[in-house]
Amino acid sequence: ADASWEEKAWNRLKSQIRPRGSLGLLENIAARLAAIKRSLDIELSKKLIFTMAGDHGVAEEGVSAYPQEVTSQMVFAFIQGWASINVLARHGGIDVRVVDMGVASDLPEDWNIVRKKIRYGTANFTKGPAMTREEAEKGLLAGAELVVKAVKEEGYQLIGTGDMGIANTTPSSAILAVFSGRPVAEITGRGTGIDDQAFQKKVQAIERALSVNSPSPEDPIDVLAKVGGCEIAGLAGAVLGAAASKVPVVCDGFIATAGALIAVKLAPAAKDYLFISHRSGEPGHKVMSDILELPPILDLGMRLGEGTGAALAMPIVEAAAKVLKEIKTFEEAGVTDTGH
Amino acid sequence: ADASWEEKAWNRLKSQIRPRGSLGLLENIAARLAAIKRSLDIELSKKLIFTMAGDHGVAEEGVSAYPQEVTSQMVFAFIQGWASINVLARHGGIDVRVVDMGVASDLPEDWNIVRKKIRYGTANFTKGPAMTREEAEKGLLAGAELVVKAVKEEGYQLIGTGDMGIANTTPSSAILAVFSGRPVAEITGRGTGIDDQAFQKKVQAIERALSVNSPSPEDPIDVLAKVGGCEIAGLAGAVLGAAASKVPVVCDGFIATAGALIAVKLAPAAKDYLFISHRSGEPGHKVMSDILELPPILDLGMRLGEGTGAALAMPIVEAAAKVLKEIKTFEEAGVTDTGH
Repeated sequence: ADASWEEKAWNRLKSQIRPRGSLGLLENIAARLAAIKRSLDIELSKKLIFTMAGDHGVAEEGVSAYPQEVTSQMVFAFIQGWASINVLARHGGIDVRVVDMGVASDLPEDWNIVRKKIRYGTANFTKGPAMTREEAEKGLLAGAELVVKAVKEEGYQLIGTGDMGIANTTPSSAILAVFSGRPVAEITGRGTGIDDQAFQKKVQAIERALSVNSPSPEDPIDVLAKVGGCEIAGLAGAVLGAAASKVPVVCDGFIATAGALIAVKLAPAAKDYLFISHRSGEPGHKVMSDILELPPILDLGMRLGEGTGAALAMPIVEAAAKVLKEIKTFEEAGVTDTGH
Repeated sequence: ADASWEEKAWNRLKSQIRPRGSLGLLENIAARLAAIKRSLDIELSKKLIFTMAGDHGVAEEGVSAYPQEVTSQMVFAFIQGWASINVLARHGGIDVRVVDMGVASDLPEDWNIVRKKIRYGTANFTKGPAMTREEAEKGLLAGAELVVKAVKEEGYQLIGTGDMGIANTTPSSAILAVFSGRPVAEITGRGTGIDDQAFQKKVQAIERALSVNSPSPEDPIDVLAKVGGCEIAGLAGAVLGAAASKVPVVCDGFIATAGALIAVKLAPAAKDYLFISHRSGEPGHKVMSDILELPPILDLGMRLGEGTGAALAMPIVEAAAKVLKEIKTFEEAGVTDTGH
């Protein structure tokens, strides 16, 4: 991103017919968009969310409220247009593309999904690495390539990332534990709504995974391979692909932000292109946004995934671009400016 | 509003293909909409914001960063489509209607505004009442009638309220001081961005207004007349008109919520129809939302007015209606439900 364009944006924002700073976070978003697009005239109407699906071997430890088959059932619901992400994306004028990054079963040929399966779910990471380093790299590349192509070949201007995968708050907390160094219990939540007993199992599973695999915080691909997930690889890759394509990317909640964290650890400059859609209900999400130094746009108490937070926040990012371009300046409008 | 419909809504929300409660505040909004509309199939696509303008005699005390002529200059900008509210309302597919409730000057005949002027700005309330009781009642009725007609004759389904009026955070803080009993300095803010000296003048002006006029918290019309404003009367009336028409109404920030507070004090049942769009940057706004027991939907650090917060939140209210109607249930979709 180009800081000189951020400054040009602030100059315009400060001369618009309203009190200085009165649009709060929208102004920060607008200035960041200017730096990304090197322009004050930014169009973000063509919007796409990638909902990346994958299964997790650690599900067998009883860390989730739902059985693993729900991942593929939800993928079916997505392609039928029945699920939360479909409803919220339609409302926001956003296209949705569902990607099989690593669902544990073969999905029927006639399902309208993008097929990038890197393996049939991860291995149970309490017993060894979730996947190989090569698989993690393959997932990253697949996610990046999908975004690069969507931007280049189809003209998408704003990208969102979302997830589907039973048990995937578990690897997300594990990734965060590695990068934050915080105690696992402090950054692990109830996911889809587990009871105290399952919560204890979840914390112990993550602690075991960290001790069995010893992922290195200096090597983000090592972290991704050992305690990550197939869809998390795709989500990280999508952020890298957006940065490489110079388009803004809005990540969803806890799982998508875990992917974004991997991306930014791999390529710190990718952070300039990243927006966090909302504050997830998962307790670790605040730690993620603090590490990334990015404020969530919304805080609606949501904890669903699928890209639902991104679907609600992307129109607000688009609004910020219009604020920058369309609100007239005091000079243009002939309104008295007192410099406040 | 009808609590039995709220229960029906919760039953559907809890049986949708997602974890229970995972859409957070959207679910609360959805349930409240069901109670308002007595339906689970709610259409809110036809949306209208009333931006009510008025001037304030107290401006002569130096409580604002801008001179009074800016009120009419901004009304001109609104009808040209140049201002923040125009940009954000267009983005959200929301119509805007600008109402002269009490601008201090005559606005040109050819300006496309709604003319409901109840007086040429209020009197300086540090020296006596801002307006007469009759004027306050006239303003309330005008605001209510505008909404009732927009719903009945034009089919608007979701109403927003916004304000324009130099110095109007001053009467808004005064209204809040009467109803909350809190110290004036604690619930008074910097408005459009005043310095320490102007802030002191503002606090003193409000304290003087309360002591000179002795508005009675038991008599909301007395409060509105003595320390309110013409546009605040219209904003309060709009909330009453929405409740009478059984349509949801989304109030903007500090000034519009002051109007909503008057409305709810007059008719407590109106609260069922009210949504607070966002948390204003004004420190008193949290006290208002606490009194109203309504959580702001957004918190973007905005402090602009005009209806800008309403314009960003109304699409989220509309999204909640679609969540309720369109997300399939476990039974409808054939997804495994574990009851979490």
